[in-house]
Amino acid sequence: MARLLLLVALVFGTSCCGAWAAQKEDVAAATAAAPVIHALRPLAGSAGDLGRRGGVPCDSWRLAVEAYNKRDWRTVPASCEGYVGNYMLGGHYRRDSAAVVDEAVAYAEGLKLGGNGKEVWVFDIDETSLSNLPYYATHGFGTKPYNATSFNAYVLEGSAPVLPETQRLFKKLISLDIKPVFLTGRTEDQRAITVANLRRQGYSGWMKLVLKPVGFKASAIAYKSGERKKLQDAGFIIVGNIGDQWSDILGAPEGARTFKLPDPLYYIG
Amino acid sequence: MARLLLLVALVFGTSCCGAWAAQKEDVAAATAAAPVIHALRPLAGSAGDLGRRGGVPCDSWRLAVEAYNKRDWRTVPASCEGYVGNYMLGGHYRRDSAAVVDEAVAYAEGLKLGGNGKEVWVFDIDETSLSNLPYYATHGFGTKPYNATSFNAYVLEGSAPVLPETQRLFKKLISLDIKPVFLTGRTEDQRAITVANLRRQGYSGWMKLVLKPVGFKASAIAYKSGERKKLQDAGFIIVGNIGDQWSDILGAPEGARTFKLPDPLYYIG
Repeated sequence: MARLLLLVALVFGTSCCGAWAAQKEDVAAATAAAPVIHALRPLAGSAGDLGRRGGVPCDSWRLAVEAYNKRDWRTVPASCEGYVGNYMLGGHYRRDSAAVVDEAVAYAEGLKLGGNGKEVWVFDIDETSLSNLPYYATHGFGTKPYNATSFNAYVLEGSAPVLPETQRLFKKLISLDIKPVFLTGRTEDQRAITVANLRRQGYSGWMKLVLKPVGFKASAIAYKSGERKKLQDAGFIIVGNIGDQWSDILGAPEGARTFKLPDPLYYIG
Repeated sequence: MARLLLLVALVFGTSCCGAWAAQKEDVAAATAAAPVIHALRPLAGSAGDLGRRGGVPCDSWRLAVEAYNKRDWRTVPASCEGYVGNYMLGGHYRRDSAAVVDEAVAYAEGLKLGGNGKEVWVFDIDETSLSNLPYYATHGFGTKPYNATSFNAYVLEGSAPVLPETQRLFKKLISLDIKPVFLTGRTEDQRAITVANLRRQGYSGWMKLVLKPVGFKASAIAYKSGERKKLQDAGFIIVGNIGDQWSDILGAPEGARTFKLPDPLYYIG
């Protein structure tokens, strides 16, 4: 447990970027020496990374989740706990997130704005702007059913670390005069702690923070697309929309361009 | 070159399934011994599989493609040729395809049909029902711009091998009395060779094969969704739709459930 928390701290804490940079160099060094060969099997060593212990291999399971082939799943397969933990903490998650944000930044930089300040970009919060990895790292990396009590207790600590890649996009958008809007499935009674958590992690300058009314019953897609419709009806142009769940980015109006961040921990339909 | 062709034959030829089964056992054996640890970095050996030589790591690039974050790309990054070749020939592609088809089969088996034979399932052809990997394996694995002349010459050979996972779904649907419809960007003048190729590879019993009129100018999404609309207007219920491109499965009517097969070789918008 202590080791896990230390690793989480290393990934997301102040020392994250140093470790990240070092890893990029390692990878570059390793691949520079790799010959261009096409084997019938994964390269030696990568099989261990697959985490297949019966059932679908964990990396194929993760791809199926990310490409929206796998839907309505309740928990990460028990056999994939090690794989998902390694993915989330081992740098792979960060690299995949960076690739998504690189695309989003390039898209945003290429936009021609109307000059009237009406362009907005929708951000989900959990696993998009803030990370609940410290919670999931101590609760089976998604292999256990959702526990509202313990998860909400974690949320109320207000200690969720930033997802640095998303924050890079957030700051870039502000510099471009595209206004960030947070749209979250967190409920209205969590507004104060959510604002405190966001500020503590370096977010500022958002135009609006939309939380779900307490007791509101609707699917995530219905709730979120309804709120985007309100933004649009108020004259805003949703130029972008980023989230870790397909339910963040499906349902008209989706936003002119959508971005799906990786999340192999849980599914929200 | 000879080695590549041999490998393609091994992956897709008659000996494909034996190699595939052997690999599954290897993976199972390797992971059974793997301890559940969460390192800050990918496991030893997997770094070489990333194929990062500047720019985005190749596995993150591939994920961005599959999750529709990366769009309108013209070629595979040159630095990723080895990675993509290894992915396509090394078993990983087959595993990822199998995971998608497993979902599709489970979904199909769970459907309650109307009993009037009106349910259809739309199949794309290239990189969905048939594989052009023998072509791409000798043309840079997508790193070179599309060459219509050489690619069409390959198509006219009618030698494209089956994608076995897709065929498993195709046969399952027929057994369930869900009618397969091929809907392809191949043009009408390629009908005869396409039918011959499909039959040679073990496909039979499809309800309809829709090819694009020669000279028809429209985006893939507009063309394919228009053809699906015609099916729907004719009283058919599109219960499923599978393709390797997002343009196969976007655009109303998409079909009740869509499936995205992996394809890191090319993009069709």
